[in-house]
Amino acid sequence: MPELRLNLATREWIVYATERARRPEDFRPDERRHRSRALHSLTCPFCPGNEDLTERSMLLLPGDDGWAVRVVPNKFPALADHETSRRWSTGAFRKQAGFGYHEVVVEHRRHDLSLALMSEHEVDDVLLAYRIRASKLQADPRVGYVVIFKNHGPAAGCSQEHPHSQIVATPVVPEQIRNRVATAVAFYDDNGECVYCHLLREELEAGERIVLENEAFVAYVPFAAYSPFHIWICPKRHTASFSELTDGELPLLARTLRTILFKIHGGLNDPDYNLAIRSVPESARGCQYYHWYLSVVPRVTSIAGFELGSGMYINTALPEESARFLREQAGPTEP
Amino acid sequence: MPELRLNLATREWIVYATERARRPEDFRPDERRHRSRALHSLTCPFCPGNEDLTERSMLLLPGDDGWAVRVVPNKFPALADHETSRRWSTGAFRKQAGFGYHEVVVEHRRHDLSLALMSEHEVDDVLLAYRIRASKLQADPRVGYVVIFKNHGPAAGCSQEHPHSQIVATPVVPEQIRNRVATAVAFYDDNGECVYCHLLREELEAGERIVLENEAFVAYVPFAAYSPFHIWICPKRHTASFSELTDGELPLLARTLRTILFKIHGGLNDPDYNLAIRSVPESARGCQYYHWYLSVVPRVTSIAGFELGSGMYINTALPEESARFLREQAGPTEP
Repeated sequence: MPELRLNLATREWIVYATERARRPEDFRPDERRHRSRALHSLTCPFCPGNEDLTERSMLLLPGDDGWAVRVVPNKFPALADHETSRRWSTGAFRKQAGFGYHEVVVEHRRHDLSLALMSEHEVDDVLLAYRIRASKLQADPRVGYVVIFKNHGPAAGCSQEHPHSQIVATPVVPEQIRNRVATAVAFYDDNGECVYCHLLREELEAGERIVLENEAFVAYVPFAAYSPFHIWICPKRHTASFSELTDGELPLLARTLRTILFKIHGGLNDPDYNLAIRSVPESARGCQYYHWYLSVVPRVTSIAGFELGSGMYINTALPEESARFLREQAGPTEP
Repeated sequence: MPELRLNLATREWIVYATERARRPEDFRPDERRHRSRALHSLTCPFCPGNEDLTERSMLLLPGDDGWAVRVVPNKFPALADHETSRRWSTGAFRKQAGFGYHEVVVEHRRHDLSLALMSEHEVDDVLLAYRIRASKLQADPRVGYVVIFKNHGPAAGCSQEHPHSQIVATPVVPEQIRNRVATAVAFYDDNGECVYCHLLREELEAGERIVLENEAFVAYVPFAAYSPFHIWICPKRHTASFSELTDGELPLLARTLRTILFKIHGGLNDPDYNLAIRSVPESARGCQYYHWYLSVVPRVTSIAGFELGSGMYINTALPEESARFLREQAGPTEP
């Protein structure tokens, strides 16, 4: 029976079109994609030995052979730090100079590796780089919002094979974030509790959408997930901003993320995916009403005219089924 | 210089990444897609002679050889009218039975034709079918919102070659529509004018983003367009709902839409695209603060992790350049 579900945190309705549902296995691409098998590429700006092809590094985390993770400026930045943060207004036309930061996190020395197949310690370094750079960029008072994200594969908007993530700092707070904060504030005023804490508690009680859980994190397919295998990784401790992640929590997040990506890689045949960390704007760091989380969206279906016309999503897989499928997939066996 | 622009009607900031900008010609796919060249397909449920492969028609518009346009139920409906509109609530989990309508508008008898290449009279019939069915569905008091849309090509989510559009009636009002209505109401209270009328007037004064204009409609690339060649077709007369389109305006909308699609087809080598009509929820039909429009989004770039993490878009083409490019493309010469 088709049904609609409301996500209390985003106030978005999602349509579950079960008449069109496929079995989880049917979302696997027919053939494994031709990812690079080269350990190293002579022309790749992110490979060791080619460091002079990028500008100076913002961050180098050391490893046995030199650097392990490197953060460099994006060669084609969407926003640039040499710009002013000036505003213009002519009638209805409001512009803001493109001030901001756009950095690339080179996740590993190896050209052919993917985050799903790295060791726990290696994923640890990637998350540490995220935290260090996000904290640094948020400290600039001209920054409105910091987005940490990853595009894996061409359908997810990735044009560079070498494993990497991106960090963009914008001079404004996006309207969607403003709306989510307002929704969270209203829920907090009504209930005296963070809406994300509330959802997490009810998801843990229900259990059927949980993929895995440890001392600090829960990975689950939300009750009103956008798309098949759409996952939220939520800290159990109420924390509004990703930059509040402690040194003790970091390895637990690495373990959780790596296991989820490994299960997706194995169960869905290395699909393209996007990953994003949603945090509160820095101006509200430490607040009681918002909660950061990491979202993973395998790109197994496409956004079309219905989504364009309504902002609503049609999801062809029930979250309970997506979660069960991922629970059943093997996790990594090596540390 | 990179810049951000605010859309006053949606309150969304769009990043213009001019450092990454390509020339408009660079968005053309390398090779023309292999669209079907068959006039007729024996197995296509939308081809003449195969009418028994679909359920009864909701609407038939007559033509010289039988029907010209036909509206049928979607074989795999996202929402179904045999469902109740019941709601359930268990703690944080809110569900709504999947009541609604999901219809397919078969735009033409010919299997290989596309809306861009139809005659003005044929596009007229498609729009007439939209209006008749949307008005009918909106009259059901259990319907919250009606979305009219079209997916052209696989990258736009289209799985059926025969030219068709879709109409979905949902039992709820989507959150994005609620937010836009709230933004429009606030602007109306502040300024005593519809924000879309205001933007249209300023766009006409500025002129540089207008693609074409006639007595009743303006087609332009909005000051803060989401993506390259993203176009709004707006009625000049203040009307909140598409179903208020008059018989006199309908042929002018057909001419505008056909010309825009023809220019996109020729200038960008028949790209995949989505089309959607955004209207006020029926409960506010006739209101002073909202304005319907038709949006066309060629799928020449992809949505990635940044958009997922922030709800903001990065656009690699300035709207002025997209508009100039489309103005320079030839329009149809036949009526």
